[in-house]
Parts: sequence; C-alpha cells; structure tokens
Amino acid sequence: MLDTVDLHRKLDRARYERVYPELRDRLSGLQRAVFEEKIPVLLVFEGWDASGKGDTIEKLVGRIDPRGYEVHLTRAPTEEERLRPFLWRFWNRLPERGGIAIFDRSWYRRVLAERVEKAVPRRVWESAYEEINQFERVLSEAGTLIVKFFLHISKPEQRHRFEKIERSKYESWRVTRQDWKAHARYAQYRVAADEMLERTSTAWAPWTVVPSTDKRLRRVQVFETLAGAMEKALEASRASPPAEVRKKGPPRSHKGDRTILDTVDLSRKLSPARYEKELARWQGRLRELEFACYAARLPVIAAFEGWDAAGKGGAIRRLVGPLDPRGYTVIPIAAPKGDEATHHYLWRFWKRLPKAGHIAVFDRTWYGRVLVERVEGFCSEAEWRRAYHEINEFERSLTNGGTVLVKYWLQISPEVQLQRFQAREKDPARRYKITDEDWRNREKWDLYRDAVSDMITQTSTTYAPWTIVEADDKSWARVRCLRTLVEAIEQGLG
Amino acid sequence: MLDTVDLHRKLDRARYERVYPELRDRLSGLQRAVFEEKIPVLLVFEGWDASGKGDTIEKLVGRIDPRGYEVHLTRAPTEEERLRPFLWRFWNRLPERGGIAIFDRSWYRRVLAERVEKAVPRRVWESAYEEINQFERVLSEAGTLIVKFFLHISKPEQRHRFEKIERSKYESWRVTRQDWKAHARYAQYRVAADEMLERTSTAWAPWTVVPSTDKRLRRVQVFETLAGAMEKALEASRASPPAEVRKKGPPRSHKGDRTILDTVDLSRKLSPARYEKELARWQGRLRELEFACYAARLPVIAAFEGWDAAGKGGAIRRLVGPLDPRGYTVIPIAAPKGDEATHHYLWRFWKRLPKAGHIAVFDRTWYGRVLVERVEGFCSEAEWRRAYHEINEFERSLTNGGTVLVKYWLQISPEVQLQRFQAREKDPARRYKITDEDWRNREKWDLYRDAVSDMITQTSTTYAPWTIVEADDKSWARVRCLRTLVEAIEQGLG
Repeated sequence: MLDTVDLHRKLDRARYERVYPELRDRLSGLQRAVFEEKIPVLLVFEGWDASGKGDTIEKLVGRIDPRGYEVHLTRAPTEEERLRPFLWRFWNRLPERGGIAIFDRSWYRRVLAERVEKAVPRRVWESAYEEINQFERVLSEAGTLIVKFFLHISKPEQRHRFEKIERSKYESWRVTRQDWKAHARYAQYRVAADEMLERTSTAWAPWTVVPSTDKRLRRVQVFETLAGAMEKALEASRASPPAEVRKKGPPRSHKGDRTILDTVDLSRKLSPARYEKELARWQGRLRELEFACYAARLPVIAAFEGWDAAGKGGAIRRLVGPLDPRGYTVIPIAAPKGDEATHHYLWRFWKRLPKAGHIAVFDRTWYGRVLVERVEGFCSEAEWRRAYHEINEFERSLTNGGTVLVKYWLQISPEVQLQRFQAREKDPARRYKITDEDWRNREKWDLYRDAVSDMITQTSTTYAPWTIVEADDKSWARVRCLRTLVEAIEQGLG
Repeated sequence: MLDTVDLHRKLDRARYERVYPELRDRLSGLQRAVFEEKIPVLLVFEGWDASGKGDTIEKLVGRIDPRGYEVHLTRAPTEEERLRPFLWRFWNRLPERGGIAIFDRSWYRRVLAERVEKAVPRRVWESAYEEINQFERVLSEAGTLIVKFFLHISKPEQRHRFEKIERSKYESWRVTRQDWKAHARYAQYRVAADEMLERTSTAWAPWTVVPSTDKRLRRVQVFETLAGAMEKALEASRASPPAEVRKKGPPRSHKGDRTILDTVDLSRKLSPARYEKELARWQGRLRELEFACYAARLPVIAAFEGWDAAGKGGAIRRLVGPLDPRGYTVIPIAAPKGDEATHHYLWRFWKRLPKAGHIAVFDRTWYGRVLVERVEGFCSEAEWRRAYHEINEFERSLTNGGTVLVKYWLQISPEVQLQRFQAREKDPARRYKITDEDWRNREKWDLYRDAVSDMITQTSTTYAPWTIVEADDKSWARVRCLRTLVEAIEQGLG
C-alpha cells in the first residue's frame, strides 16, 4: 500500500493556520465526549524513525485532558515481558473505558523490527498476524475504538532528517548507530511494512497511511482521521443500548436431557490408606517437575472451575502444598471490581499470566463469562455466545506459545452439595464459607448445568481439553487433579 | 470437541412424539418468516458416513416450502470445479435472499476427506481454514444466517450401520469399498474433524455437534437448534433497518488536496508510428502467452476500472484482439440486477472467475462497491468501508491460488473527458455511448476522485497492485495495458 502514497504532498501555511486550530478544538471536545460515553480508545503510531511520530503525539496530547490518556513507548521487550506471550504487555496497557492509550510503536513491532532484525523466527512472526487480528477484533467487538497510523517518508528524506538531527548541538545523540543500520535496511523494512498493512488492515481496525514529508499535512491528516473515527464511534455507541441494559438470563432449559455431566462416574473413591500413598507419590513428582519447568522456562496454568462446595479449595491446597512458593501463584477470581470492571473481561486474566517457568493456579477463571455471567444475565446472550470462540482463541494463543494449560471441572451431585452446605452451616469454623448466594445458586442448578455442558462442549479443544473430575469423594478428586497436572507437565516438557 | 459428546443419549418415544410435530410446525412457520424477511440461510451438514445426514435433511425439507430451499450434495469436485478456487463451487450455490441452501457435506470437505485422503498437500488444507473463516464471516456480516451441524457416531456404531445396510436387499449398494476404507481411517478422520471444529467454530458461524446414535434425539436437536438460530436471526434483522434504507453518500470532500491521482503524468503519449510498432510487438507476445497460460493452467484476470470515456472499451479490444476467443472472456459489469441483486455483492464475481488456463477481462469490477455504490449511496458507509478488507481477502485468496490478477485504473483529466463527451455527442454513430448519467457523474468528479484515491490506497497490495494508466492519450494507454498484462503473465509463469 505504501507505493500509492504521494510523498510530495504539502499543505500550505495559510490553509493550515485556518484548519488546524479548529481541528484541535474539535478533538478536545470529542475526547470529553468519548470519556463520558465510556469508549476505550487505542491509538497506534507506527512508521519510520524520524517520520514525526513524536511530534504528532505531542501535538495531539497538547489538547487532551491529561487525565484522559496515557502514552506508551514500545521498545524491545524487557526480561519480564519476554517471559510471557508477546501480546501480554499490550493487554496490560489497555485503557479503561473512556481512556485513550497512545502507542508510539506497538504490537506491530513483532512483524516489523523483530522480523527484519531476525529477533524471532519466521514461524513466530507469521503466526503473529493472526493473533494481532484476533486481539484487535476481540477488543473492537467489545466497543474499543482502534485507530492506527503509519507515518511514511522516503529513504532519502529519512537520511536528510537524520543528518539534520546529527548537526544539531543538543539533539545529535538522538540518532544512533542502530538507527543508521535500520536506515540501511529501509528496503527490507518496507517489504515488512507493506505486508503488515495488507494483512492487518481489517474492517474493525483499518490502517491510515499518512504521507509525512510535510508536517502540516501530517498533523492535519492524523487529527482529521482521528476526529472522524471518534465521531463515528460516538454515534454507534449512542445508537446501541448501554452495556448496563442487559437481557435476562436464558429461559430455564426445557430439555432436562442427559448431558456430558451425567456420564461422570461419581462413585469413584480412594480409601484413606490409598489416598495417603497416592497423594505423596504425585506431590513428590510435582515438586520435581516444578524445578524442571523453571529450568525449561515452561509456563504452566492450572484452571479450576466447579460447583460450589465441590472442593476446589482443598484440591488447590494439595496441588500447591509441595511446591516452592517462589515458583507458583494462586489467583482467586471473584466478581470483577475496580479496574477489572472497566476493562475487557479477558484483561484481568491476561494481566496475570504466569511467567515462563512459573505455575499459575486460577481458582475460578475466564469461564465466568459463560457460567455466572450467562446465568445471572450479567452479559448479553450475544456476548457469552461470542465468548466461546474468544476463549478458544485465547487458549490457542497460550498453548501455541508453549504454555501447559490444564482445565478442571469439579463435578459433584446435588445431594453431595447439600450435605456439604449443611455440614458447613453446622461448623462454626466454616460457617463463613456458606452464604445466601450459595443457596440461591443451588436453586439454579439446572441453568448452571446447561451452561456447564455447553461450556465443556464448546471449549474442549485438542490443545486445551477439559478434565472433568469426579469430586463426590474429595480424596479421589485431589489425586486426580494432581496426577492430571503431573502428566500434562511431563508431556509439555517433551 | 468430539470427546465431550455423550453418544449414549437417547430420547424416549413418548417425549419425541409430543415434541417433534410441534417442532416441525414451528420450523415451517419460521421458514416463511425468514423468506419474508429476505434472510439467506446456509445449512451445513457434516458428519460420519451413515450418521443420519440424509435422514435429517429429508425430515427437514419435508415441512419446508419446496420453492424455499435447495439441497446440494458435495462430492469430489468435478473437472470444471478443480480448475477454480475451491470455494468457487460454493459461492455458485449460495442462496438468494430468503432462500435456504442445505449442504450435505460442504466446503469442509477440504479439511476432512481431502486432508485425510491426501488429495491436497498440507499447505493447501492449512490455509483453507483461514479462507473458510473469511468466507463465512463475509457472508454473515452481510446478513446470511449460517448453521452448521456435525453428526457424530462412534466407530463401532458406524460399523454396525454399514453391516445393517449391507444386509438389506435394496440398499446394500449404498456401502462402497471406499466407505469401508474411510471407516478403517476413523481415527484419522476424527483428528481432522476435531481440528476443524476447533478452528472454524466462530462467533459468526458456530458448530453444533449432534450425538446421532439415537435418531429421535438427533432430529429434535437439529430442529431445535435451527429453530432457535432462525428466531434469533429474525429478531436481529427486524431490529436493524432494512437494507433498502441507506444513508446518503458522504459529504463532498473539503480537502481538495493532491491525491495519488494528481501524481500521474498525463502528458505521456505515443506517435502513430511508434504506436503501431509497439501494439504489434505486445499483441504478438500476448498471443504467445495465451497458449503458455493454457498449457500451465494459469488463470488470468485483467480488471478494468476508470473514468467514463477513459477508453476502457478501446483498451480491452486491443488486449483481446490477438487472442483465441476460446481462451478468454470479456465480462461487462453493469448495475446488479435479477439474481445479482439478491445475492452478496461479491457473488457475481466469484461465479465468473476464469478456469485455470483461461483469461477473464472484467470491464468494470467488484470495485463498484467502493466507487459508484459509495458515491451514490447504494450501500451504507459501514458496508463500503468493510469492503476494502473483504476485497483484499478476496484477491489474496485468488492470488494465493495462483491467479495472475492485473488491475487497471484508467486516469484522464476532466478536460479530456469533456472533449470526448462532446465528440461523442457530435458523432451520430457514437452518440448512444453518452447519456445523461455520464453528465451527472461528471458533476460528481470530486466525490469520485476521493473514492478512487481511497480505493487505490486501501487495495493496492503487494499481491494485487493497481496499475494507474495515463490515458489522456489512447495509444499510450492501450500499449501500457497490454505491456502490463504481458509482464504480469510472464512473472506468473515464472
């Protein structure tokens, strides 16, 4: 697409001085409106070194309420970041609703600098296109406005600018040997940039290529494009019902049919003696594997879901019991609040992905979207239906990146749940664990049962299958969880 | 996903006899509503041989108005079909608005039978996932309802059914050696099916896996899923404004800036003597290449766009002049009418893709979506903006499949257009070529100019770049078109 850009275009000063101040005021008003309408905005600036990204961003934020935006400069990933999937650091920097995140270079680094400088193998940057398109689609479908600019200058123009900066007394340090090296590879970068523009200019997040030889033209074109996009997003947001207005949950299932859950053999149990022996055996192996994971830089996720009182807590304690606490984290997930509630539902999980070599144990997970949020009507039907595919993509990008992902559904019968509820109520030490909400959820058993079966059917994939754990007997369940994890890690280590 | 399906589920007869007749009536009513609401429906049945696809389809169509549906049995592609991109035959079979197309096996053949039987190399079926998801997304975004079923039975159950059919006097012919071979490869097919379900169960076209051991359960589940999906599609369609209600075209450009079109050097010309020489030279080479294309099975598309009176007709005549008429087709594109108007805008172009080894010359193209339809407001802004990405995907799937695609924009100055209009009006033999509409379009020069620049910027890709032809001098333009095609074909032949 770059060869269609006319780099000789200019905007004359008189016109600029008429148009530009108006544009800045318009943008400033739009920023307030976007803030009030709670639309998150991602602004991406890519382009050649010295093409004017810094100047554009400076001019842009000059008129925006400083509480409304954050600028992120993207360089080579840090050690922390290299130990996670490449999109992790960008999920971490997503704006909350109404906020604007401005990226001076971005996730496109992977298919530009990292590709050309051969920092990653072809397979890796090739598959990044798909992950990037998914990332942007998922955010856009949840209402994020994404505006992407590529600032374009010619190779001679870049050389001219570098030389000018080098002659300047105070700025000469800004041009490095690295910059000159990249300049020498202009042609290779251009091939990469063209392919990037072609493969990631989607309907939901199109690129705008800006001819940047003339700075007046560049500023006006960026501001106009951004203002137009914001106006359109505002119009769309106002036309659709606000996120708070939700439909009620789905009607009670009239099927009452057998589901996958009915095929679970809940009579499985372990005798106390056998339990002690098996527990010690699998805990020992897991402890050894923890070090092996660390050495091999293998990230591991154990994700626990299950009925109330199914024994998730106890199973998790046995799982992490033998482990070195520096090597794992247990992440309890409750209803989203604070920052979590003002971001995309997957945001808080991306944020907490384990480093390579570490183990993260999620006590409840991203599946809340298709369980409690579905049943209680906290999200719309379109949203939870879309979530199956979004979650499959999320898990695929984790496992493609080498993560060992184990997902447990702890299955118990309604009778066993009742016994455990009653036992908890009788025990003063454990009474706090049982609330009115637990009793209310229990009344919705059938609705949850439908949601769980759909979840297992839709998200049991070859790369991230569900393990349905027979949990009427706690001993059996705990050993099963341990053993499944051990075997998955062993497979992951190859 | 298949391992989560409980194949032992059954539906008892009493319940079936209560539920099933109601369901059939409901479906029959829904089909009429979908017809009236003009929603096109794609129904896909995949699954094991003898899993009950035929029975389900038979029961389904039993209650549908026969004018409302068409059943397509998908077998190995014919010779005609193998000479085109693999989705070609399915684009050809798309229903018009309000119609239902039922596929007994479908485009998924490529990632199932063709994969397992090694009819295509890995690279080909791997990239098919992306093309399939794009195909379904493009249709779904334009309002098509896509419902996909995978009917699942176990390997022993399949064997049991094959044996039963073989024992039957009249049906034994139905089980072939080929079927038994596929049966022996059940495990391989299952891996392929699982991967297919995972990678193509999208938010816009999810799969429903149906346990098909019990036929009553199978029928009820298919009918219920379909009825639910139709109801949802009706609701969504009624909530959004009908396709006929369009916004007006975009406001007149206030930029008036230089665009890529202003960089074209319209002074290029050829002397009569030089023209004769060059024309003969390039026509001769093209003639030779026509045979080479045929021998190499190379499909070629020359796509012409340009201002009114820019000389498309003349250029096309010089292009095809030297060719054997059995090897090429000229396809004039006017406003869509009849079947064209009741299908997706890309449909009529997919239908007319050239066979491998043949040359198709489009006189106006799919770019009408972002030119006349944009300027005249025949489609919504969201639609023409989405089209850039859709067209890039379309052309990428053509060129990935080996098609040589050359796109011309014939550029002339407004002055030259005026001279040619006036000359046509004065010439009784050519007066028919100039209409009131041409004069009206001319008044919209600036709006078209914006649309053309956007089109060239957004759809000039490395795999399908635009050639902007300087066309104030017809001789120059004709030779340029010929030469560009010759060079592209030579490159395509390697």
